[in-house]
Amino acid sequence: MIFKYPGGKTYETKQMNKSIRPFQPNYGNRGMTLEEDLNATNEYYREHGIAVIHKKPTPVQIVRVDYPKRSAAVIKEAYFKQASTTDYNGVYRGKYIDFEAKETKNKTSFPLKNFHEHQIHHMQQVLRHGGICFVILRFTTLNEVYLLDANHLIMFWEQQRSGGRKSIPKREIERYGHYIALGYQPRIDYISVVEKVYFSH
Amino acid sequence: MIFKYPGGKTYETKQMNKSIRPFQPNYGNRGMTLEEDLNATNEYYREHGIAVIHKKPTPVQIVRVDYPKRSAAVIKEAYFKQASTTDYNGVYRGKYIDFEAKETKNKTSFPLKNFHEHQIHHMQQVLRHGGICFVILRFTTLNEVYLLDANHLIMFWEQQRSGGRKSIPKREIERYGHYIALGYQPRIDYISVVEKVYFSH
Repeated sequence: MIFKYPGGKTYETKQMNKSIRPFQPNYGNRGMTLEEDLNATNEYYREHGIAVIHKKPTPVQIVRVDYPKRSAAVIKEAYFKQASTTDYNGVYRGKYIDFEAKETKNKTSFPLKNFHEHQIHHMQQVLRHGGICFVILRFTTLNEVYLLDANHLIMFWEQQRSGGRKSIPKREIERYGHYIALGYQPRIDYISVVEKVYFSH
Repeated sequence: MIFKYPGGKTYETKQMNKSIRPFQPNYGNRGMTLEEDLNATNEYYREHGIAVIHKKPTPVQIVRVDYPKRSAAVIKEAYFKQASTTDYNGVYRGKYIDFEAKETKNKTSFPLKNFHEHQIHHMQQVLRHGGICFVILRFTTLNEVYLLDANHLIMFWEQQRSGGRKSIPKREIERYGHYIALGYQPRIDYISVVEKVYFSH
């Protein structure tokens, strides 16, 4: 919806409340975002006692809140903030698990612009403290998902900073990363890969 | 600030943007909330390579966002959501650390109404998966802070549910919990207590 505020400035308004979005039938997995698939996967893990991993809430800078009488507080002005950490963390077999998940429409490489300096720094800190840290990368067009350890992501990030390429070639992700099988329940079974990569030795 | 919207309904507006709040000198630790003290403590831990622990962002249900031309997206309507987890988590010596922090003005007991069912359930899950889980309890009037393992909190919670008392007597917190020394840097050195309680055996 586009409308004009008094003064003639153009604004676009986007409804984001899922509960008031009209019902849309979901044919299998089609069109689900990586975030939705991972939330469903994490719910499955929690319900089946496999792991406790949550997505962190979107960081928001709240500027103005109204407190109407007899109803819930309404945030009237707020802004999206850049996250200083990754989006997902939790516990598996006592160990700290931390990851970021990103998707691309590219078919042959994964653009590094999907990550920012703060997140890379956070990943370095997690690794230094013995946490398990990785990224989940989805090639949406190919419907292929990979787990890549943060050490490798950081390697490509550092190469980029010293003049290297701005994306990770898919063959490198296949080489250093781990293919995650897609299913119905759980949809993206990354914990099986975590078990194999980080616990089987 | 209280004003009336067209229609006569009364609203209260609260400015929450710290950057536009007038400068107020801070004499030592006076008047700092537990959250501010813990954020400063966690920053200290990160900067000194001791642990990587963050407060999760406040969960917000975003309903309406405006996208003004040539400036940042503005959230125009949003609501506070109840958190389904605890507020703080991260990694220390490879282990998953998870806690909630609450304060009371009471002097002799800590009201259990500071916690809700979802959080207790989350703590139970974390414990089941081998994570380190506790609460940090501050008696603001006495300026005393304790770490209480989640197992003990859950014990008092269960007692309450079966007709027991609605608060934890301070003497029980002293008995089962661990006093946290307060300082200047870090302000609330709970990791020293975590080291002693969970790693020294």
